[in-house]
Amino acid sequence: MTSQKSDSAMSPKITGELLRQLRQAMKNSKYFSEPIQAYIVPSGDAHQSEYIAPSDCRREFICGFNGSAGTAIVTEQHAAMWTDGRYFLQASQQMDNNWSLMKMGLKETPSQEDWLISILPENSKVGVDPWIIAADQWKNMSRALTSAGHSLVAVQDNLIDAVWTDRPERPSTQLRYLGLNYTGMSWQEKISALRAKMTKGKVTWFVATALDEIAWLFNLRGADIEYNPVFFAYAIVGMNTIRLFVDLKRLSVPALRDHLQLDSPCKPEMSVHTYPYESVYSELQAICAAHSPKDKVWISDKASCALTQVIPKIHRTQIPYTPLCLAKAVKNATEIQGMKMAHIKDAAALCELFAWLEKEIPKATVTEISAADKAEELRSQQKDFVGLSFPTISSVGPNGAIIHYRPLPETNRTLSLNEVYLIDSGAQYVDGTTDVTRTVHFGTPSAYEKECFTYVLKGHIAVSAAVFPNGTKGHLLDSFARAALWESGLDYLHGTGHGVGCFLNVHEGPCGISYKTFADEPLEAGMIVSDEPGYYEDGAFGIRIENVVLVVPAKPKYNYRNRGSLTFEPLTLVPIQVKMMNTELLTQKERDWVNEYHRICREVIGAELERQGRKGGLEWLIRETQPIA
Amino acid sequence: MTSQKSDSAMSPKITGELLRQLRQAMKNSKYFSEPIQAYIVPSGDAHQSEYIAPSDCRREFICGFNGSAGTAIVTEQHAAMWTDGRYFLQASQQMDNNWSLMKMGLKETPSQEDWLISILPENSKVGVDPWIIAADQWKNMSRALTSAGHSLVAVQDNLIDAVWTDRPERPSTQLRYLGLNYTGMSWQEKISALRAKMTKGKVTWFVATALDEIAWLFNLRGADIEYNPVFFAYAIVGMNTIRLFVDLKRLSVPALRDHLQLDSPCKPEMSVHTYPYESVYSELQAICAAHSPKDKVWISDKASCALTQVIPKIHRTQIPYTPLCLAKAVKNATEIQGMKMAHIKDAAALCELFAWLEKEIPKATVTEISAADKAEELRSQQKDFVGLSFPTISSVGPNGAIIHYRPLPETNRTLSLNEVYLIDSGAQYVDGTTDVTRTVHFGTPSAYEKECFTYVLKGHIAVSAAVFPNGTKGHLLDSFARAALWESGLDYLHGTGHGVGCFLNVHEGPCGISYKTFADEPLEAGMIVSDEPGYYEDGAFGIRIENVVLVVPAKPKYNYRNRGSLTFEPLTLVPIQVKMMNTELLTQKERDWVNEYHRICREVIGAELERQGRKGGLEWLIRETQPIA
Repeated sequence: MTSQKSDSAMSPKITGELLRQLRQAMKNSKYFSEPIQAYIVPSGDAHQSEYIAPSDCRREFICGFNGSAGTAIVTEQHAAMWTDGRYFLQASQQMDNNWSLMKMGLKETPSQEDWLISILPENSKVGVDPWIIAADQWKNMSRALTSAGHSLVAVQDNLIDAVWTDRPERPSTQLRYLGLNYTGMSWQEKISALRAKMTKGKVTWFVATALDEIAWLFNLRGADIEYNPVFFAYAIVGMNTIRLFVDLKRLSVPALRDHLQLDSPCKPEMSVHTYPYESVYSELQAICAAHSPKDKVWISDKASCALTQVIPKIHRTQIPYTPLCLAKAVKNATEIQGMKMAHIKDAAALCELFAWLEKEIPKATVTEISAADKAEELRSQQKDFVGLSFPTISSVGPNGAIIHYRPLPETNRTLSLNEVYLIDSGAQYVDGTTDVTRTVHFGTPSAYEKECFTYVLKGHIAVSAAVFPNGTKGHLLDSFARAALWESGLDYLHGTGHGVGCFLNVHEGPCGISYKTFADEPLEAGMIVSDEPGYYEDGAFGIRIENVVLVVPAKPKYNYRNRGSLTFEPLTLVPIQVKMMNTELLTQKERDWVNEYHRICREVIGAELERQGRKGGLEWLIRETQPIA
Repeated sequence: MTSQKSDSAMSPKITGELLRQLRQAMKNSKYFSEPIQAYIVPSGDAHQSEYIAPSDCRREFICGFNGSAGTAIVTEQHAAMWTDGRYFLQASQQMDNNWSLMKMGLKETPSQEDWLISILPENSKVGVDPWIIAADQWKNMSRALTSAGHSLVAVQDNLIDAVWTDRPERPSTQLRYLGLNYTGMSWQEKISALRAKMTKGKVTWFVATALDEIAWLFNLRGADIEYNPVFFAYAIVGMNTIRLFVDLKRLSVPALRDHLQLDSPCKPEMSVHTYPYESVYSELQAICAAHSPKDKVWISDKASCALTQVIPKIHRTQIPYTPLCLAKAVKNATEIQGMKMAHIKDAAALCELFAWLEKEIPKATVTEISAADKAEELRSQQKDFVGLSFPTISSVGPNGAIIHYRPLPETNRTLSLNEVYLIDSGAQYVDGTTDVTRTVHFGTPSAYEKECFTYVLKGHIAVSAAVFPNGTKGHLLDSFARAALWESGLDYLHGTGHGVGCFLNVHEGPCGISYKTFADEPLEAGMIVSDEPGYYEDGAFGIRIENVVLVVPAKPKYNYRNRGSLTFEPLTLVPIQVKMMNTELLTQKERDWVNEYHRICREVIGAELERQGRKGGLEWLIRETQPIA
């Protein structure tokens, strides 16, 4: 799936009184010596998470807009909210007229900096919570304001929290630990590997701030953020110490204490010292104060400004991808096995779903929402199911053309024999995370729908079957997914793939496949990404074919300069609807790929469906995997 | 052709005495109030040209190494020269043991900054000529040195020039002007278009420093730098004034004075005011001093530090690609027509060359050098020939695997019936610039040579025939050129294409096709690039197939979001040797492409050869363009 969030409440939030209170707080000497003239409300949390907990939805609270991306700024006179093209409509519906919608990407829309500079009185102070602004964003904003005679100031108390009387608590869900049979590597081994990289990088401390990195490092999982099995924590790893900052109540369970060896540490350098979540600031400050300037500290350049700045510059080394991010991306044999198992179960559930849909749709009772619910129900019957990995995109006809669609009661369409159906969904299992998109027609697709589907399929195959040298970055593969569409004058306006975690976030760095050249790291055997080209005809239909694929070594005829080659192995094993294909547009190689893929689906998922006694799904699978000529 | 320079003198230069003199100059109070502890000698000229004039070969003078890329640094005790992998062997042969070769790209090699910091005494001063270091390089070096307690200082007198007693004069070759029949646009129209962009960008001044941009703007050409028809100059364009800084002697020719309307200017804002080349600094200083800080000045971020810093920060807007660079890249109808004519003449010369080679090679008298000479002789017989556009790469067998090979007496091989021959060559004609590579075998190529050639051909065709949306950047096409090689485990370690000037530099920005993502601008109809994948088997042979291609609108079946599509039209029309192809590895589409390409070659170049009465070339052309099955 591609990334976004939308939601149900489409009537604007009434914000007049809230803004009055916020503006009063902006003058309240309790928070600062001098009042501030503007207050910035970013959308993130203190860990720069993609999905956030309800207690962190401060931008939504103040303006009503609940999309995944947006920044609100409130001054004495104005209130404005910046978001991108995905959200123009939604934001305009969710915000009342106290707010100006700033449409990012349009030429006439000023940047936040330029807008502030244009309206602020001379020598203004602009406040922001340093915990929820990333260090690099702080730097840019601060530079721009300073150059215009203003200043950016860190406001330690969050002013939204000050006016948010019924703000939810920060979640503190139950933690679970994962054994070696799931992780393939103990947390002690991961600490040792991290320290080896620290030694190589000549640093003595590493500060972990990303929640999925901390969960991965300690082989722990939580449920603090919906769809993401993570928990609020920080960690500071030194060459001889390990500090974990977390709500200490969570660690009272004996099994967890055993897992972390809290009560009977064997070696001092492998003892985990636990601290309250909030004490990370003072502890990091103390560490830096107690050590020589030669001791360097690694921290992600996406960490919060607050935590970054507590490290004196002389100690600080900001890095784009932490050693944990890089290590986590390359799955070990146990994790790969777990991901394969998760995908087999997930495919079994989807085969059942499609068989059920075929039977139910003629009754005209299945809607986008009820189909999504059925998918969740069938997945939840699978072993070690934990929850969904993202909100299901279940879309019929024209709704399928809205790339980040999520069915709402007011948009909910009924599945029929006449329209294309696109479902992009996935789940968290204890052994792995899934993410799959299939586009199907339950009646007779039009020649044009088939043609477009076939171009998308050709793109999907071109990536999946690509052979490329070791060290190739994913962005170099993006055009393979588009070539067939381009040849006919078509395209899609999203990337082709993202990294996928193992019972972790469904989107993770540092690799991906996109025309946008971000600083992606080279693909390596063991990395797992999605392959999901699409085509979207506004007002008519949407097509996307998505598999999660594993990077594996390839063995072509030659081996130039001993670099070795890589290719992909699909982990997702759900039939791709042949009815939607115009097989005349496929080359023999592509037909062979489809037949081989379907053969594996039939063999592997067939055995699983049989084992589970799911006859409907099995019959559907066998019919849908007949070879094409 | 891909970019580089190598040369004949392979015995090391004796540099002991020169270094002694330079080190004395580094302490000479004539140049500075306090002595400097290190002096940096970059390889460029004041215009950051790719090719430089003999008077600018200062790094070569001081250390002996004459490759295109390298930076020398001399301290009281040390002398070191940094260059990249293309040049390790050559540099080690050309430098004596006063010099340490710093092999860039190897992990153990320190950066220039780190090396300086590791060896300099505290509070050192490092000098550099601010005219030959680009502004962005100055910034990086200065920051690194400052952070370690040293400082980078601009030394106005070049210290190499101070010890270079027989330094050549800066060239001042005869200028020629180009009429509308060559340029399609008068310089006045170009000035107006530039001013329109300045108005839109809210700047009041533009400083032109790149030699090809100035030549293009004024429709003038020179011969100051070998292979590049440019002349030493600067220009400053205001909304009402045009200042051209050039050796004034060059403008004494009446026809040139007419062209620039120097004696009878019609409108004041279209009058060219001429100034001595050297006065650009003081003039720009005066302009900035005389204008309000609201008046912004555009200058390339690759301009010299000296000229950049003379513009106060408040006035300065540094840009990656100037409006001239962007305008020059999109050729108008007249320029395209000229480029086509130049390529027809060039192809005629090459057909003659190959016919001649076939006849001569059995005598075993043709060498890499004599073949290159013959190519030049045949080109020089063509109308409006000016010179070569780069040194011919003429390489036999294993020499072909050296990507930037240039035949030297000591490496010169004889062409034979047993080895692959690669020739990468091009010329400047008054109507256009050419650059073409063909790889041929005069006997019987091995199955492996044919296989590799065919993969390269498949890549060449994949780029040439690609259809892609308007606005696509060239780097997104690079993998198309590699897919067939990758599938067999092969690759090549250079980019796929570069922009080509029109009777200007054979390498020009801002577009290109490369896996290295530089800040390339999107491809537009009218841009001209090379398409030159290759394969190099060390010690055995090299293969490259290069055409210059024009970006043209494509008309596929659909037109997604009205973006429009583009494709390429080959301007180079020289047969691609069928004997080198394993046609079984080609798809029907690829075979069709080859046959259609050869049909056009036969038709267009055949007519030209017939017109020129060149029977040998014509017979060769007809034989070489027979359709393949």
